[in-house]
Amino acid sequence: MLSIEEYQEEFVEFLNNYSTVKEPQTLYNPIQYILNLGGKRLRPVLTLMTADIFNNDYKKALNAALSIEVFHNFSLIHDDIMDDAPLRRGQKTVHEKWDVNTGILSGDAMLIMAYQLFENYEANTFQALAKLFSKTALEVCEGQQYDIDFETSDHVTVYEYLKMIEYKTAVLVGAAMKMGAIVAGASIEDQNSIYDFGKNLGIAFQLQDDYLDAFGNPKTFGKQVGGDIIENKKTYLYIKALEFSEEENKLKLQQLFSNNVNTTDNKVEVVKQIFKTSGSAEATKKAIQDYTNKAFMVLKSLNISDDKKAILKDFGTGLMNRNV
Amino acid sequence: MLSIEEYQEEFVEFLNNYSTVKEPQTLYNPIQYILNLGGKRLRPVLTLMTADIFNNDYKKALNAALSIEVFHNFSLIHDDIMDDAPLRRGQKTVHEKWDVNTGILSGDAMLIMAYQLFENYEANTFQALAKLFSKTALEVCEGQQYDIDFETSDHVTVYEYLKMIEYKTAVLVGAAMKMGAIVAGASIEDQNSIYDFGKNLGIAFQLQDDYLDAFGNPKTFGKQVGGDIIENKKTYLYIKALEFSEEENKLKLQQLFSNNVNTTDNKVEVVKQIFKTSGSAEATKKAIQDYTNKAFMVLKSLNISDDKKAILKDFGTGLMNRNV
Repeated sequence: MLSIEEYQEEFVEFLNNYSTVKEPQTLYNPIQYILNLGGKRLRPVLTLMTADIFNNDYKKALNAALSIEVFHNFSLIHDDIMDDAPLRRGQKTVHEKWDVNTGILSGDAMLIMAYQLFENYEANTFQALAKLFSKTALEVCEGQQYDIDFETSDHVTVYEYLKMIEYKTAVLVGAAMKMGAIVAGASIEDQNSIYDFGKNLGIAFQLQDDYLDAFGNPKTFGKQVGGDIIENKKTYLYIKALEFSEEENKLKLQQLFSNNVNTTDNKVEVVKQIFKTSGSAEATKKAIQDYTNKAFMVLKSLNISDDKKAILKDFGTGLMNRNV
Repeated sequence: MLSIEEYQEEFVEFLNNYSTVKEPQTLYNPIQYILNLGGKRLRPVLTLMTADIFNNDYKKALNAALSIEVFHNFSLIHDDIMDDAPLRRGQKTVHEKWDVNTGILSGDAMLIMAYQLFENYEANTFQALAKLFSKTALEVCEGQQYDIDFETSDHVTVYEYLKMIEYKTAVLVGAAMKMGAIVAGASIEDQNSIYDFGKNLGIAFQLQDDYLDAFGNPKTFGKQVGGDIIENKKTYLYIKALEFSEEENKLKLQQLFSNNVNTTDNKVEVVKQIFKTSGSAEATKKAIQDYTNKAFMVLKSLNISDDKKAILKDFGTGLMNRNV
C-alpha cells in the first residue's frame, strides 16, 4: 500500500499522460484546462487505494480512477454553468474563460470520454464498470436536480435533504471505491460493502461541509465562513433548526432566509446563534458521527485483513478530522 | 422484412413503453417531451432494418435503436441551446419551454440513459455497442464544434466542410446501421461495410439538405427556402461558389455573407443566381450523386442476398429522391 500522497502523485502522472491536445482544440483545450486545475483528487485516490486493498495492484485501476475524475470534472463544468459560478479552485470557470456553449459541449465530450476509459478492460469488467457508472452518473444528475428544486421549495424535509446529498455527492464516493473493488476482482459482497462504506462516509463528509461552512475556523476553512447562510442555502443545519425551533425563532429564520429580505450585517451571526440554541448544531454533529460510525460498521463484514481495515478506518477518521 | 412505416410503428410502440414519468419530474418530464415530439425516426428505423437484413430478428435490436434515438434527441436539446433555437419540430425547444439549466441537465441524463439501454445485451455485445457509441458520440461533439468554429472562420475548405458534416451527421447514420449488424451477429467485415454504406448515404443526405435549402420547392420543403443563405451559413454550395467564382462575384458573395451588411430583399435570389452561374449548384448535385454511388458500391461486398441488397438500394434511392 502507498500513502495518500503517493496515490495522488501516481494518479497525477497518469492524468498528465492522458490529457494531450487534440483537434478541434476549441473542444479539447477546456477539457485540459479543468482537468489540470488541481484539487485533492480524493475520488481517484479512493479507487486506487481500494484496488490495492483487495488485490495489491492499483495500477490496473488507473483507468477507472481517471474515469471517475473525468466524470467529476464534467459535472463541475455543467454545475458551474447552472450556478453561474465565476470561479473554480480560484481560477475562472470554463464558461467564464470561454463561454456557455463551450462549457456545454466540452462537458458532453468529457462524459463520453469517461466511458471510453473503461474500454481498457475486458468485456465483463467493462460492463460491470459501465453499469455502475451509468447508475451513479444518473443519480448525480437527479441529485443536482433536487438541489435546484430545493432552492424554490418552501418545505424541504430532512429525508429529502439526505437523499439529495446522497445522490449529488455520496454515491460517487461509493462508486469510486466499488470500481477499485471490481477491477481487483473482489467478491460481489465485498464490492457492495465497500460501496456502502464510501457512500456513508460521503454523506458524513457533506454534512461536515455544511457544519464547517457555518462553524469552521475562518483562518483555515477554504471558503468564506457563512457562505451558505448568505446564499440562503437550506442545509441540514437550517432544516434541523426549523424543526427544533419554537414559532418565534422559526419565523425569524424563515424571514432571514427569504430572498426578499435585505441581508443585515449580522445575519450570519444571528443565524449561527439560532443553529446553536435550537440544538441544530449539536444534531448535525451527531449525524456526522452517526454516518461515520455506519461506514465503520460496514468494515467489519469485509473479507480483508485487519491491517487493511485499519487503513480504511484511518482514512475515514482523517477525513472527518479535517483541520479547519 | 417489414416496410419502413411498419418499423416506425414498432419503434414508436417500444418508445412509448420506455418513456414513463420518473422522479424528479423536473428532470424527466423534458426528456418525455422531446422524445415524443415525433419525427421520422430515421436512425432507429435503420437499426431495425439492418438487424433484419442480417438476421431476420429486428426485435433484438429495439434497445440499440432506442439508444440511438435517445442520443440523437440529447444532441438536439444541447444544440438548440447553443443555436438559441426557439422551435423544434414546430414546438417549443426544451430550453424555451423550461430553461437553459433544465436543457443542460436533462440532456446530460439522456446521454447516460442512451448507454444504459445497452445493458440489455450480454457483455461482449454490450462492449461492442458501447465502444461504437462512444466513438460516434465524440465525433458528433467534434462535428458540432467544427460547425461552431466555421461560423467565425473566414476560410473553410471543402475538405473541412465535408469532415464537419461527416462527424456531425453522417457517422450517426453509419453507427445506427452498424449497431443493427452487431446485434444480429454479422461479421466484422459486414459490420464495417454497412457502416460505410450508412456514412456515405448520410453525407449525401446532408449535401442534399444544403441543396434543397436553396433550390427546394417552397410548397413541399419543410423549412423556409433560402434559410441557410439568410443565416450566412457556409454550406457546400457557398464554398464551391467561392472556389469557382471570379474575383467580382467572389467579393459580392463574401459581402452578402458578411454579418455586417444589411440584408437586401433580393439577397436570396442574387446568391442563388451566383450558385447557379458559378457551377456550384451543379457541383453540389454531382457530389450528392457521387456519395450515393459510393454507398451503393459498398453494397456489392456485403454477404447478404441480392433481394436484401435491393432493399437497401431502394431505401437509399427513396431517400435521395425526397419529394421536395
